[in-house]
Amino acid sequence: MPGKPSRGLADVVAASTALSDIDGQAGRLFYRGYDINQLADSATFEEIAYLLQRGSPPDRAELDGYRGEIAAGRELGKLVAGSLPEVARAQEPMEALRSLVSLASADDPDKDSNEPAANVRKAAWLVAQQPVLVAAYQATRRGRPVREPDPGLGLAANFLLQITGTRPSGTEARFFDTCLVLHADHTMNASTFAARVCAATLSDMHSAVVAALGTLKGPLHGGANEQVMRTLEATRQAAEADGADPVEAVGAATTARLRAGEKIMGFGHRVYKVEDPRARHLRRMSAVLAEASGDDTYYRMSRRMEEVVLAEKGLYPNVDFFAATVYHYLRIPTDLFTPVFSVSRMAGWTAHIMEQHADNRLIRPDSEYIGESGLTWVALDAR
Amino acid sequence: MPGKPSRGLADVVAASTALSDIDGQAGRLFYRGYDINQLADSATFEEIAYLLQRGSPPDRAELDGYRGEIAAGRELGKLVAGSLPEVARAQEPMEALRSLVSLASADDPDKDSNEPAANVRKAAWLVAQQPVLVAAYQATRRGRPVREPDPGLGLAANFLLQITGTRPSGTEARFFDTCLVLHADHTMNASTFAARVCAATLSDMHSAVVAALGTLKGPLHGGANEQVMRTLEATRQAAEADGADPVEAVGAATTARLRAGEKIMGFGHRVYKVEDPRARHLRRMSAVLAEASGDDTYYRMSRRMEEVVLAEKGLYPNVDFFAATVYHYLRIPTDLFTPVFSVSRMAGWTAHIMEQHADNRLIRPDSEYIGESGLTWVALDAR
Repeated sequence: MPGKPSRGLADVVAASTALSDIDGQAGRLFYRGYDINQLADSATFEEIAYLLQRGSPPDRAELDGYRGEIAAGRELGKLVAGSLPEVARAQEPMEALRSLVSLASADDPDKDSNEPAANVRKAAWLVAQQPVLVAAYQATRRGRPVREPDPGLGLAANFLLQITGTRPSGTEARFFDTCLVLHADHTMNASTFAARVCAATLSDMHSAVVAALGTLKGPLHGGANEQVMRTLEATRQAAEADGADPVEAVGAATTARLRAGEKIMGFGHRVYKVEDPRARHLRRMSAVLAEASGDDTYYRMSRRMEEVVLAEKGLYPNVDFFAATVYHYLRIPTDLFTPVFSVSRMAGWTAHIMEQHADNRLIRPDSEYIGESGLTWVALDAR
Repeated sequence: MPGKPSRGLADVVAASTALSDIDGQAGRLFYRGYDINQLADSATFEEIAYLLQRGSPPDRAELDGYRGEIAAGRELGKLVAGSLPEVARAQEPMEALRSLVSLASADDPDKDSNEPAANVRKAAWLVAQQPVLVAAYQATRRGRPVREPDPGLGLAANFLLQITGTRPSGTEARFFDTCLVLHADHTMNASTFAARVCAATLSDMHSAVVAALGTLKGPLHGGANEQVMRTLEATRQAAEADGADPVEAVGAATTARLRAGEKIMGFGHRVYKVEDPRARHLRRMSAVLAEASGDDTYYRMSRRMEEVVLAEKGLYPNVDFFAATVYHYLRIPTDLFTPVFSVSRMAGWTAHIMEQHADNRLIRPDSEYIGESGLTWVALDAR
């Protein structure tokens, strides 16, 4: 029988991948060999989704073709469209997305095919659908029609247009595009790993993405960005009610919580030993957007929290921490922060599912038994 | 950087569990320390679900209370009931169950609580719901009303009543109950592991079960029992059309397929090196039901396949192989075989999710990077 488990599979190599790589000591992240710092400044999300799903950066014609697939993939299927009013009424955002993506397979003619051509097509379609599902959910629960996408805008700008109802500025659209680039893939994170475990039974791409969505929903994974914002909001509200300075208040509260042994969401990462390279880009964007908004309180509060957590615990912000204020300044409702994460990560999930299907082995680990042994079952009446 | 991956995590200990244990060399399976061979002969599925979810066998009062929870948990939620007609029209069985269970969280007041009391209640509720969801799906797609459960029958007999429309014989009810006992848990199988990966982000029980359902759907996991039956059906039909003996035909076809390097579904298991103990019970039940049915062709075909695969490859039947003919003789439609598996495994999934939540660490493995390195991103117009 095998030995002790590695709790949480920390440091266990579960799969080979050509999609992304992390150098945790140096704080570097690569998508297919390209440093995230290059990509954050110069690639669009559509280019990155193409890179991840199809293997290399698209040329102009390939990108135009892919954008055409994205535009054509925006229409909701019949089962999803029919279910949306009741789902939006009864389910919270990530719960609703889990349901809607599961329902969406109904209208996919290749839903049970894992053939490469079918998977490539489905992967683009899922990337096209996800922002529309989030926008349609938001519009439906607010009782307004879904805003028509603008064919002249890319995926990021269209999403902001559909969510906020106003056309984003050039800076807003570019920054949000960069957010999507930064979140697109991240090796064997929990939701991606869940997708690969599912796909490794040769289950279909929709099933694997639904597994990933349910996994991303957890507060230790995608739910963290929303919690960061809720902490900032609650602390600011309480401070202002007391006539106190929110920046001082969040600093004191963070110190107190850390000294009480509490965990602060948005800090530290199992893989990065230094700063998460994505955090640097998000911090910079948060600063610019805060200044443009005319109220930089949440940004200044975030910086104070960052100082305190570094001083007290030596931990750096992860991708979730400054994503919270960036999304806030982009006027994305707080309870849609994790859905926004899913809009981007859909590119990585689908690429990992294809990689798993292309060279598959069932993922079926062992376990260590820690219960009682050698018991004798006694009939009910003798218990 | 870590080393080579263990493909499929074979022999990697991913978690500790007190729920089940396998001795793969001796061909033994235990639930919480009780040998499956004792349980197959003397426990009901409700007792096993209780044992797995709540830690020890119920006494009479505890079992009555649990049965009361199961009976009360049969009512479908509003969102599920409203969605059922369209889902049953548009989605195949496992696809539909993935959607319906995702929709079902809407009507759970504790849907976002992972507290032990909430989880224990939800776990019983999910066990109560799953057979009703399968039966309601089947009735709806056949355009007939869902048959009312009989409060005097247990979960297994009620399921057969609802699926077939006729009251099962005592033997049929007892045998199907044993099938549910045999499938209830099986250490870190792929669907259970997917559920634990999801739950380890502190996502909720419904999300984790939805991940498990999508994973079970795959032909390398839950889908295998259906494929076994489809092979038997197709081979028999072709043989009879040719005036050939189906038993001889399946023997010859199996030999030919094995010699061509094909895999035969329902044989071999990563963990068992000898016969899967569950297969022995299922073979015995298949023999009895075959004789009672007046047409034992599929049973005799199965025995011939078993002989051929053992002689050619040294592989034994796994749990899926004789489950196929048992379900067939119980008049369960072939495309509901994997859903039946989920009715039973729901007991194990929910118990594993509670175990994960009770002593949690995020499951986040490493990966080995096998792609290109050090590439320079070239702007689109220069590509």
